[in-house]
Amino acid sequence: MVCDPKRGFSLDPRLAIIPAPMPPVAASQRTSVLTPDARALLERRARRLRRMSVIATTEAGSGHPSTCLSAADLVAVLFFREMRLSVADANDPANDRLVLSKGHAAPLLYAAWAQLGVLKEEELGTLRRLTSPLEGHPTPNFPRSEAATGSLGQGLSIGLGMAVANRLDKSQGRTFVLLGDGEMAEGSVWEAASLAALIKADRLVALVDVNGLGQSQRTARGHDTAWYARVFEAFGWRAVEVDGHDLDAVAQALESTRQSDGRPVALLARTLKGQGISWMADQDNWHGKPVPADKLASALAELGMGEDGSKPLPVHVPATPTPCQPSPKAGTLETDPPYKTGEKVATRNAYGAALARLGAADARIMGLDGDTKNSTMSLDFMKAFPDRFVECFIAEQNMVGVAVGLAARGRVPFGSTFAAFLTRAYDFVRMAAVGKANLKLCGSHCGVSIGEDGASQMGLEDLAMMRAVSGSVVLYPSDAVSTERLVREAAGHDGVVYLRSTRPAVPVLYPASERFPLGGSKLLKSSPEDKVTVVAAGITLHEALAAHAELAKAGIPVRVIDAYSVKPLDAVGIAKSLSATAGKLVVAEDHYPEGGLGEAVMGALPAQVKAFRHLAVRGMPRSGAPAELLARHGLDAKAIVKAVRELVSAT
Amino acid sequence: MVCDPKRGFSLDPRLAIIPAPMPPVAASQRTSVLTPDARALLERRARRLRRMSVIATTEAGSGHPSTCLSAADLVAVLFFREMRLSVADANDPANDRLVLSKGHAAPLLYAAWAQLGVLKEEELGTLRRLTSPLEGHPTPNFPRSEAATGSLGQGLSIGLGMAVANRLDKSQGRTFVLLGDGEMAEGSVWEAASLAALIKADRLVALVDVNGLGQSQRTARGHDTAWYARVFEAFGWRAVEVDGHDLDAVAQALESTRQSDGRPVALLARTLKGQGISWMADQDNWHGKPVPADKLASALAELGMGEDGSKPLPVHVPATPTPCQPSPKAGTLETDPPYKTGEKVATRNAYGAALARLGAADARIMGLDGDTKNSTMSLDFMKAFPDRFVECFIAEQNMVGVAVGLAARGRVPFGSTFAAFLTRAYDFVRMAAVGKANLKLCGSHCGVSIGEDGASQMGLEDLAMMRAVSGSVVLYPSDAVSTERLVREAAGHDGVVYLRSTRPAVPVLYPASERFPLGGSKLLKSSPEDKVTVVAAGITLHEALAAHAELAKAGIPVRVIDAYSVKPLDAVGIAKSLSATAGKLVVAEDHYPEGGLGEAVMGALPAQVKAFRHLAVRGMPRSGAPAELLARHGLDAKAIVKAVRELVSAT
Repeated sequence: MVCDPKRGFSLDPRLAIIPAPMPPVAASQRTSVLTPDARALLERRARRLRRMSVIATTEAGSGHPSTCLSAADLVAVLFFREMRLSVADANDPANDRLVLSKGHAAPLLYAAWAQLGVLKEEELGTLRRLTSPLEGHPTPNFPRSEAATGSLGQGLSIGLGMAVANRLDKSQGRTFVLLGDGEMAEGSVWEAASLAALIKADRLVALVDVNGLGQSQRTARGHDTAWYARVFEAFGWRAVEVDGHDLDAVAQALESTRQSDGRPVALLARTLKGQGISWMADQDNWHGKPVPADKLASALAELGMGEDGSKPLPVHVPATPTPCQPSPKAGTLETDPPYKTGEKVATRNAYGAALARLGAADARIMGLDGDTKNSTMSLDFMKAFPDRFVECFIAEQNMVGVAVGLAARGRVPFGSTFAAFLTRAYDFVRMAAVGKANLKLCGSHCGVSIGEDGASQMGLEDLAMMRAVSGSVVLYPSDAVSTERLVREAAGHDGVVYLRSTRPAVPVLYPASERFPLGGSKLLKSSPEDKVTVVAAGITLHEALAAHAELAKAGIPVRVIDAYSVKPLDAVGIAKSLSATAGKLVVAEDHYPEGGLGEAVMGALPAQVKAFRHLAVRGMPRSGAPAELLARHGLDAKAIVKAVRELVSAT
Repeated sequence: MVCDPKRGFSLDPRLAIIPAPMPPVAASQRTSVLTPDARALLERRARRLRRMSVIATTEAGSGHPSTCLSAADLVAVLFFREMRLSVADANDPANDRLVLSKGHAAPLLYAAWAQLGVLKEEELGTLRRLTSPLEGHPTPNFPRSEAATGSLGQGLSIGLGMAVANRLDKSQGRTFVLLGDGEMAEGSVWEAASLAALIKADRLVALVDVNGLGQSQRTARGHDTAWYARVFEAFGWRAVEVDGHDLDAVAQALESTRQSDGRPVALLARTLKGQGISWMADQDNWHGKPVPADKLASALAELGMGEDGSKPLPVHVPATPTPCQPSPKAGTLETDPPYKTGEKVATRNAYGAALARLGAADARIMGLDGDTKNSTMSLDFMKAFPDRFVECFIAEQNMVGVAVGLAARGRVPFGSTFAAFLTRAYDFVRMAAVGKANLKLCGSHCGVSIGEDGASQMGLEDLAMMRAVSGSVVLYPSDAVSTERLVREAAGHDGVVYLRSTRPAVPVLYPASERFPLGGSKLLKSSPEDKVTVVAAGITLHEALAAHAELAKAGIPVRVIDAYSVKPLDAVGIAKSLSATAGKLVVAEDHYPEGGLGEAVMGALPAQVKAFRHLAVRGMPRSGAPAELLARHGLDAKAIVKAVRELVSAT
């Protein structure tokens, strides 16, 4: 994608349409795509997939066999006829890939990989056990998962991210996403569909398993594949309706996705949930229920016994993919950030500049935004690296999903929007953590300090939200130097990292050579006589420094700590200051009181705190000038001075 | 909506299509909808709306005039010709309503209400000031807002909820939602569009202001109104393309929405951002920027001076709406919950049963679910009150938005899904709080105690997420009696309430007559010699009771507190126990360590805690048996015993 300054991406045909490796299938060939032998083998493989899915879930005592049965024929043709990939090298960028968006069909995925030889069929007997890599929904514990799924409606975004990476790698690999029809109700699917059509992600294929049944009732559209086809087409896709249990039809439809007219392709496959077992097929109340042990024999009999049933099939060797260029390698940036102490720079501006500089040193860095790039300042990165920037428009879920897909393909994606609007994508961030995705997010315009736009635009729960993501790192820089350093730290850390940036310009506090390791803090002010420890970050750190100056004049020395690493928190460093100040603590944060910096400190240092004043945004904020709002919510220097004085006089 | 057990709602034509109050407009009348006088007055009104929007934002020094200018003609025709409402009674269920989904056009909304006489035009001079009801984006501080907006893509869901309420009230009132084209990228819009078409919300009208410009660049589809029309039609809407600056065309198009063919209607209005000011119209880089003071005169000159410009227009008196039945009144339930101590009931089952019982007493109660009703057990409510249940399918954002719309129309909506999947709707919940919506949510399947399905299905950040919602109440019952009591408390509390329910069956702990006030806790075990205070809730409370029994045998008495009200927390009650146990505290919670019960207690009782063991879900959980996972993450009775012993021996 080359950037068009007005549209944020290009439709450059050299990049958009990669020639397909095989010639298109003529309409006259429709009934003869499969030879009788090939068809017979695919039938056996599909039967085997069903059998293994049913046995594994019955042995586990839980799981979703019925949803495996509806998709088994699609998966059989996909894996054992259509996909080209190196089984030995899962990371080959030339590979075709499958993202299992309907993650509850995990046993089917595991059964397919068993036929490709990467696990033994017996291992399916460990499904859902504490010690097994084969979890109830796919996770990185099974390395061929491609993505953690199980929260529905996320796979298409992730697949789109992978397709974008493939385009950059000049890979001819196709990205298949298997979706359930129930999850088509998630708007995030249509966010992905819209962007995919717009950027002509022609090597992205959505396979929709339209089995017509949700968890608790019929889906909204039942078996109306034409409805799904109309919507996909309206969004700009090519849509193909197919009988999802007709192997010939599926093979022909999948083969047709090799050719490109520039549009991504959606296959709407009419299927039956539970197909292959007469008393389960198309019946309600079989979602998430294994075949009872006493019915297993009858189920297996229907699925086919004898040689086809009990004996494993020979390992399938997929066609070799067309080689492509390797994905970019990591690079590092050694120069100091170009800031002088005292100059005024908003941390959001420092973020954009840092990203652009880092991008020059490390070709893996990518930028994404939700049409706020001139506020988050990811615009600076787009200007420098238009071909590595994806404008996702106002669709934060898809932005995060695309980033997760890019990360899965070796990129280091930084997605940015207002901190408030990242709440939109919380489920995607949560799932990124489940998938151990190397995802970086920046939320700008945090706190009441944004001022007049009012509460809807203020990020006030982002620290709570991001801290509660398993294994996450949460960073909150206070000046331009720390912002740039922390952007680099974020890029160097493998995992989910969140960086919170601020709207107003603030003075640079640190010399350019200062380092900001994850898990650290900075003791900005200290003396042997300090009475109180003041912990702050971001905008409130500047208020704390002003309070320090005022208190110094009044003869009340206090320590001031910059807690730039909110998670992991520098508990050891803060504890040292607390013991030097008789356990007296003030925490000031431009965030709601729950789950932010104050509770992080309290949770980490339970016995060390003897007296505590927690300055945070209490009550609903509103429109007003930034300084007025900091005062109204008790976060300014005056409020910090007051809190310190209370703690001192309480002695 | 009468329930069809297979589809969860009905297409009953008696309910779905309410006769329109005015005859349809024939095609031959198209050019003569407005008399010359009416047209001239509308032109003056539109000019006045533009003028006031520009002046107010320039005086405020911030804001979004360009987006007001694109929508001014639409709003003029809508307010001053189309809408029927009682200006004196904003709450009349018969009123037509406008939800301003593109909330950044707030000044336009305020200017329109000024022409309806509910505020003085001079008051627009207070826009965005700390003391003004006229915030940067609409909030309840301006009571005619209908909904808090400003996070884009939420208005159509809210409008759909209002339309559903109208149908129940047999109101002929129409619900108009004014959307920007930028926000059409949000998938939540299509979630709402899909459900609206499915339930034939024929009195819902989406007005899309297709000005072609986003915040940072052209929108994805620019002025391609045909693209939007195709997508709406594919989803099942009637779509009308119109020149949004042609008052005649807009009037005719809006008039056509009075007639119904059973489909909701979308008006795709081609407009120019900044229309009326030559150097702003259709120009990039005018998003969120007021006209500079030195350019104001030139702007106003272009918008029209003289009598039209500086003198307020006469107040517009809208047509009277057709009266309808009043909305239902509150009712209370006095009987005790029908449970006996010791019987085993999952709190999710108790939730469904409580909702059904409460629904019989209080006709305002409504149920919504995201196709998990047979897991959350809101199914019980649906079975009892099919006409008050909205199956929203797998689209959690829209589910919450519809609930917010229902709440705005006097209902008490309970939306349920897995706690994990409510992360999907966090932005909607956040905005519900900004709008002071009377929203109730239940998240089921919390914590690792769900077992084999794995991390993707486990609600482990829901307490952090919901606690950080301004003004929220967060409840976490441990048995059937407290669940039912807390459902009733939730219904009786005006605001956002979250209730966390659990999958496994657990014994009833409390007598049926026990009360559970918000902000309370229960001291379940205590003696004068207690060594440690153990605070728990939900599944871990049962582990704490088991630990208590084991420790008692070993001669170590401990207090056990049921912290069923996580927010507000019973700080006083817990502090009493802490002072009786030398400040020794164990908190056990089936949640990540950040932002949950442990940090809530630590944040509330900073100086009282002398020694602390925080048992929470550390590290990424996975598939496994519930008991295995509780043990793996150190949450079972054994782990609690160990933590207590450590605290005791540390003396």
